Amino acid sequence: MQTIGFIGLGNMGGPMAANLVRAGYLVKAFDLSADALAQAEAASCVVAMSASEAAQDADVIISMLPAGKHVNSLYVTGQTPLFDVAKKGALIIDCSTIEADMARSISALAIERGIDFIDAPVSGGVGGAQAGTLSFIVGASEAQFEKAKPVLESMGKNIFHAGEHGAGQIAKACNNMLLAILMAGTCEALNMGMKNGLDPKVLSEIMKQSSGNNWALQVYNPVPGVMDNVPSSNDYQGGFQVDLMFKDLGLAMELSQSSASATPMGSAAKGLFNLHKSHGNGALDFSSVIRLYS
Amino acid sequence: MQTIGFIGLGNMGGPMAANLVRAGYLVKAFDLSADALAQAEAASCVVAMSASEAAQDADVIISMLPAGKHVNSLYVTGQTPLFDVAKKGALIIDCSTIEADMARSISALAIERGIDFIDAPVSGGVGGAQAGTLSFIVGASEAQFEKAKPVLESMGKNIFHAGEHGAGQIAKACNNMLLAILMAGTCEALNMGMKNGLDPKVLSEIMKQSSGNNWALQVYNPVPGVMDNVPSSNDYQGGFQVDLMFKDLGLAMELSQSSASATPMGSAAKGLFNLHKSHGNGALDFSSVIRLYS
Amino acid sequence: MQTIGFIGLGNMGGPMAANLVRAGYLVKAFDLSADALAQAEAASCVVAMSASEAAQDADVIISMLPAGKHVNSLYVTGQTPLFDVAKKGALIIDCSTIEADMARSISALAIERGIDFIDAPVSGGVGGAQAGTLSFIVGASEAQFEKAKPVLESMGKNIFHAGEHGAGQIAKACNNMLLAILMAGTCEALNMGMKNGLDPKVLSEIMKQSSGNNWALQVYNPVPGVMDNVPSSNDYQGGFQVDLMFKDLGLAMELSQSSASATPMGSAAKGLFNLHKSHGNGALDFSSVIRLYS
Amino acid sequence: MQTIGFIGLGNMGGPMAANLVRAGYLVKAFDLSADALAQAEAASCVVAMSASEAAQDADVIISMLPAGKHVNSLYVTGQTPLFDVAKKGALIIDCSTIEADMARSISALAIERGIDFIDAPVSGGVGGAQAGTLSFIVGASEAQFEKAKPVLESMGKNIFHAGEHGAGQIAKACNNMLLAILMAGTCEALNMGMKNGLDPKVLSEIMKQSSGNNWALQVYNPVPGVMDNVPSSNDYQGGFQVDLMFKDLGLAMELSQSSASATPMGSAAKGLFNLHKSHGNGALDFSSVIRLYS
Repeated sequence: MQTIGFIGLGNMGGPMAANLVRAGYLVKAFDLSADALAQAEAASCVVAMSASEAAQDADVIISMLPAGKHVNSLYVTGQTPLFDVAKKGALIIDCSTIEADMARSISALAIERGIDFIDAPVSGGVGGAQAGTLSFIVGASEAQFEKAKPVLESMGKNIFHAGEHGAGQIAKACNNMLLAILMAGTCEALNMGMKNGLDPKVLSEIMKQSSGNNWALQVYNPVPGVMDNVPSSNDYQGGFQVDLMFKDLGLAMELSQSSASATPMGSAAKGLFNLHKSHGNGALDFSSVIRLYS
Repeated sequence: MQTIGFIGLGNMGGPMAANLVRAGYLVKAFDLSADALAQAEAASCVVAMSASEAAQDADVIISMLPAGKHVNSLYVTGQTPLFDVAKKGALIIDCSTIEADMARSISALAIERGIDFIDAPVSGGVGGAQAGTLSFIVGASEAQFEKAKPVLESMGKNIFHAGEHGAGQIAKACNNMLLAILMAGTCEALNMGMKNGLDPKVLSEIMKQSSGNNWALQVYNPVPGVMDNVPSSNDYQGGFQVDLMFKDLGLAMELSQSSASATPMGSAAKGLFNLHKSHGNGALDFSSVIRLYS
Repeated sequence: MQTIGFIGLGNMGGPMAANLVRAGYLVKAFDLSADALAQAEAASCVVAMSASEAAQDADVIISMLPAGKHVNSLYVTGQTPLFDVAKKGALIIDCSTIEADMARSISALAIERGIDFIDAPVSGGVGGAQAGTLSFIVGASEAQFEKAKPVLESMGKNIFHAGEHGAGQIAKACNNMLLAILMAGTCEALNMGMKNGLDPKVLSEIMKQSSGNNWALQVYNPVPGVMDNVPSSNDYQGGFQVDLMFKDLGLAMELSQSSASATPMGSAAKGLFNLHKSHGNGALDFSSVIRLYS
Repeated sequence: MQTIGFIGLGNMGGPMAANLVRAGYLVKAFDLSADALAQAEAASCVVAMSASEAAQDADVIISMLPAGKHVNSLYVTGQTPLFDVAKKGALIIDCSTIEADMARSISALAIERGIDFIDAPVSGGVGGAQAGTLSFIVGASEAQFEKAKPVLESMGKNIFHAGEHGAGQIAKACNNMLLAILMAGTCEALNMGMKNGLDPKVLSEIMKQSSGNNWALQVYNPVPGVMDNVPSSNDYQGGFQVDLMFKDLGLAMELSQSSASATPMGSAAKGLFNLHKSHGNGALDFSSVIRLYS
């Protein structure tokens, strides 16, 4: 039986760790929050008193942290860097969404230490984490990917190999930028239709069956009442927060800058989500951007 | 057997008229082009020498013209307005893509004359016209819609009732604006991925199975070689021309202005298609906008 | 002494007519509003009972109306078109802000009747109208421009000859689009500085003396308290309303569409003013768009 | 006589150092380029063999480097950090354009060492550096500003005190973002006018005297032939390169992200400069962005 050290037991990490236990792994879990640790214990994780305790002797280390600076500190620059703790040959799977550059440079440092570090950001939200249906978008060598796959399959449904180190972060940034664009675009098409007297259900159906078809129309309609069980029909509670979309768009813009890739549509979407956030809506689901229009 | 007068036998109108003949209608067809008339004759249409000859005594009149001014001239302001020619109770189905305002006002004039005039713009392109798989997006009363439906089903697969007069044009403008947004967004997400070393096939697949999923990724990938049988793999020949998208975006912007509906994403997309057109690409398929990025 | 027929005595037209009287012209004035007529009488205009009475026998006819449709109706398509009333050789100066295309086509009709029709939209606002310091941007032949100049100099300070018929409207649309861009840009630069702790007075001064210098920083600062006697320091009352900027941007977008001139920055500005208007701010001065940011 | 250590003798730094010599300072200059050192010697600087030699015993240290990482390395993280070399009470003036956050954090470290570190990015280009007419935008305490002022006045004309540490970088980022906006806006207004037949000289003059007035129309017209002695009339050679504007817009976007300040206009401008750069124009003057439109 493989031992997994799991660092970061938040809304996403907690249920992911629980799914690993269910799949038969021995999971040593750590988080700074006592509550999170208690929940991990309830899910039959072995509770560790520190990140390094969780990582020690683990075959696989998984991290699920808010941002790049936390990941860098955990493995490289912190007081007890896990790179000094992890055993030779350990596989580190970082599921955080961070800068592609940072993922690449941490991976390069890992190789010097005889450790494997791969980027595997997720999509699918809290619901997907609980149901074990997340998507993982992996940046790794072919061999590393094959090694990580069974572990990831215990937590998710679609395991994509995007390319070499950093490619997982790049693909996620591209996808989420596109998501921001099509959500904002769908909001404004629906708003224009409604302002001209159309029924949003009818218009949504027409566009879904035509060339305007996209993920938002399929499973995440931003107009309250068009679909059940989506944030728009629940006052934009739950779902994917504007603040998180804003963070992800920031990563996309950094990628755009560092590679000189023009992103006029992504920038326009970012401007709208930023205005919406400035009006005090950072904690709402991102489909609430339709309120900016009306 | 119902008689149909068909005005406008271009790339779209020609095959549409032929499908009506196949469905058993007597089709009296007119176009200004002798070539188009010859093809209509070959398709067993009855060739008319003028629009009014085609319209006379017809139960249904269908028009498929380039722009609103042509439609207005044909029915209302031209030398022999068809409103003076059409018999009482005739049903006019205008399949052209025109201003919603104009569709509404022509319809109001029709009612004064005891004629039914409905807007039924299409989507699906030349291929759909030939195969009889077009979508029709109809603005009409319930009764008018029911009357038109069997005729439209002879030419298309999806017949949507968007709402009252003008609603067909509104829904089409909304859809095509959204299409422009998601195509430009898809192009820039793919371009950013490629600039960072990702394989466009892999990235397309990841986004298609994630929240970036949209029509362009599904059936109309803009990167040459990712899909067969799409314009991008045929040097951007065929398909839906940049010039036509530019025209449709102009209609969307008019609708945005007249209803004071903000369309920042649609405007950004229009800016990009306009730059692309300015660089001499008006005749290419609209997915060629990816060339603007590289 | 020349006789001038003046149609349209609103906030702008009223003081303009009064300045013509002061300059020694006999002004026959008409407006649909009884109040406006009373004020014109108080300013020593001769009050006319109809537009055609004002225009009859006038050497010069001036119109100052809300939009192109009013101008077209007044001269061409209304019940008593002034083109049927004006005497041969009369000079018509239309000071309304209308579509360039319409200005050109009305001018062409005028020439057929032996009348001169030129476009001379103004800038400078109500204050400029009262003080006689307006700018006129004229589209006319050289001879027409010379004929109109003394009349315009009685109402304004800068009389520009932009080019042939329609050129006045084109230049004004270009200018006002640029104004919208630089006002929105100035708002967002100031907002970003303030969010980062800078004093808006200090930042305004720095940018005014650097390469960010523009009209808004010079005479129309959008941050309350930086300048006296500007709308921002008066709760955004008075000045140039968001609704009017929205109308002018609509004209610019039409020009952009008809000439296929890409206007990504103008479109982005329009999106912002439209969002601001959608939030119920149409009647505020346009510099209030800074509120959208905060 | 005060001794000044000057690090970074490029197109800007070289002439700046020379002006300090002219003002009577003893200038110990260092650069990695032998050519630059030779020119510094010709300008009567004392040539140093390393940055630390230049900094040793200097009353004032000035740096003019390409980006934040170079500045951070020079003072803090490099092999011989100047913070270990500079004498107590030395005043460090960093004239590089870098991240505001970094300027702030380097300044905080300096205070711990008993050194003054202030940010003083410049505007005015190579011409201004040679003529001694640069603008300096300073982030510093009041006392530090007063101490730096005489030194800066030897190299420039306008010495602005933007606020506390980092404020110089913030103000410069705001200004250059606004510059990008008004240059792109001016280009598109002029392009639209020209596409509609207007003479760019006439239109430029009208807008300069109207509410469209801005720095680009005043001293940096982007249309070849409208002004002499500007980059547009010299094939867009010299001036301020697209690549540098792109870098500065990157800094502005970082500031926008870190402070959640919406910058839709700045983002739209960045999109355009990025497209222009992608087409191979990075080395041209930034006013060449007008070519993107035509």
